[in-house]
Amino acid sequence: MSQLRKDVLSGRWIIIASERSKRPDDFRPHQSQVEKRMENKGFCPFCEGNESKTPPEVFSLRKAGTSKDTPGWRVRVVPNKFPALERGTPPPKPNKGLFQSMPGVGVHEVVIETPDHEKELVDLPLPHIREVLFVFQERIQNIEEELHYQYVQVFKNKGKEAGASLSHPHSQIVATPIVPKRIKEELYSAERLFTRSQECFFCRIIKEEGENKERLVYQNSHFCVIAPFASRFPFELVLYPLRHSPHYSSLTSDEFKSLAPALKTVLLKLKSILSDPPYNFIIHQSPNLNLSQKKWPSIENSYHWHMEITPVLTRVAGFELGTGFYINPVPPEAAAGYLRENSHKDRK
Amino acid sequence: MSQLRKDVLSGRWIIIASERSKRPDDFRPHQSQVEKRMENKGFCPFCEGNESKTPPEVFSLRKAGTSKDTPGWRVRVVPNKFPALERGTPPPKPNKGLFQSMPGVGVHEVVIETPDHEKELVDLPLPHIREVLFVFQERIQNIEEELHYQYVQVFKNKGKEAGASLSHPHSQIVATPIVPKRIKEELYSAERLFTRSQECFFCRIIKEEGENKERLVYQNSHFCVIAPFASRFPFELVLYPLRHSPHYSSLTSDEFKSLAPALKTVLLKLKSILSDPPYNFIIHQSPNLNLSQKKWPSIENSYHWHMEITPVLTRVAGFELGTGFYINPVPPEAAAGYLRENSHKDRK
Repeated sequence: MSQLRKDVLSGRWIIIASERSKRPDDFRPHQSQVEKRMENKGFCPFCEGNESKTPPEVFSLRKAGTSKDTPGWRVRVVPNKFPALERGTPPPKPNKGLFQSMPGVGVHEVVIETPDHEKELVDLPLPHIREVLFVFQERIQNIEEELHYQYVQVFKNKGKEAGASLSHPHSQIVATPIVPKRIKEELYSAERLFTRSQECFFCRIIKEEGENKERLVYQNSHFCVIAPFASRFPFELVLYPLRHSPHYSSLTSDEFKSLAPALKTVLLKLKSILSDPPYNFIIHQSPNLNLSQKKWPSIENSYHWHMEITPVLTRVAGFELGTGFYINPVPPEAAAGYLRENSHKDRK
Repeated sequence: MSQLRKDVLSGRWIIIASERSKRPDDFRPHQSQVEKRMENKGFCPFCEGNESKTPPEVFSLRKAGTSKDTPGWRVRVVPNKFPALERGTPPPKPNKGLFQSMPGVGVHEVVIETPDHEKELVDLPLPHIREVLFVFQERIQNIEEELHYQYVQVFKNKGKEAGASLSHPHSQIVATPIVPKRIKEELYSAERLFTRSQECFFCRIIKEEGENKERLVYQNSHFCVIAPFASRFPFELVLYPLRHSPHYSSLTSDEFKSLAPALKTVLLKLKSILSDPPYNFIIHQSPNLNLSQKKWPSIENSYHWHMEITPVLTRVAGFELGTGFYINPVPPEAAAGYLRENSHKDRK
């Protein structure tokens, strides 16, 4: 099992996932050694027909009458074969002192978005994208039943430069036994801002950006996508639900019907304007529903789930590492302008 | 002039350096467009003889009798031709509200470490490395004379994957009109930890790691290098001065004589064991000497300058972006072991 360690100075936790690499030459990102070899041989464990090559599925949407771990699925969720964290009993509180650690208890699952190796998420028809987004909700609810999984992080790495080790379309879910630093910072800050203005900070941003329109990329009946004022990266985007809620779990079926085209449209825009870039998306939501109100009493009013979408076009270098500052050569107003004007036609 | 913008929720500042890119195809990291073209033609503005192709030098160590902006230098400092920030009068305080910004006033300089295009920093003889390290001190002192440059960040990006846009050996200095978030966090946390134990947190780490030796990579009379307990990246290292001081400026000439071999030794170890990886180093020090005691009253006792050295072997992906968590496949104890055992012999 891996180990969680805390950097006492910064409050940042890291995961030492050492079983993934035994030799000094093996320090590349997890999975890459074994799985690249597989993929080089033209073998993909996520393709239909290869169900036995993954750990047994924990959830799937599949044709009626087909059985678990056989073909017939449309979206399939399996535990990660090389997990950063593994399910287990609630870990003891970390020791005190300079060197704090705890066992790497958590969840690490892969959402295989389609049986078709060649179809990226963006290429799937809307009802299929809706199913993928629904599966996220299903898994979050399932994982949050166990209280010691304090935060569920849903994310996608598309392309090698964005951290993907397998090219078959997939996203990932990691649940951690503590609330990560970035989330805590957002929660505390949102709470402070709410106390000051008695209004959700995110709702204010959505309203202002919706009126101003300069950085608005897309809007439909339930969602909007904006290029944030202080974008760290060129063409960074944030997707917000218009209805205030801290929980992805609260999405209704009507909202899913709006979320799929919102996501597909902006991903298509990025694909056509930036020549199919690698990207990450991450869902920021409240910690485990069953815990969060104790620690953040105003969380229901002050926090607002959202999805960050960041194409990988530049590299984080020494200045960013050292300071937490980012240098962005593309003003978000310009990025939003390009994305608004250009529709899905391929520019090549 | 570029613009500084604050993300109100996270407290993070970013720099919109839009003059660096005009078209959507130009969103690659700054400098790369123009300068890659130059370098592709075999032209390097940092090489001896091409002094007229950079902005006029602001400092150099050179042969007696040679003049400014002509050959004869060993280390040369010039303003960045495509600066992220530019010198100017003290900027007004940022406006309040949801969208905070201020003019991009600051300093952005390049330290050309050697006239020899082919010799990386690690390959230079010790007296030359000492001169480069001394030049950092000279520039910090010079820049800090103007009080509105609140923080001076010295860093090096070596290799394209670490963010370097020119291959000629160089490091960079960026001074910002605010204290960056990461530095503030370290300062506040160090102060809190000092208050609790009445001892510098960094001095405690140095003592513990020096006794335990598991993560100790190198030690000489004035410096030690350790693989930190909660390393974010494989083979991440931190170099600490044994003598407590928050200021790089306080380095004595005796200490420079120890710093050069400490840095050269660990860079050589990384080079030989990890096949000459791209890397970043960054110096973390107190904010502008002339300001910091007001804001951080115990800073002289609680903060301790250091240098982070991070080879670029893995990629930051969605999970790291989303949570601030890092997954590290190499335990620092194993990394330190490899680095201790292996000396400079090339493994190829």
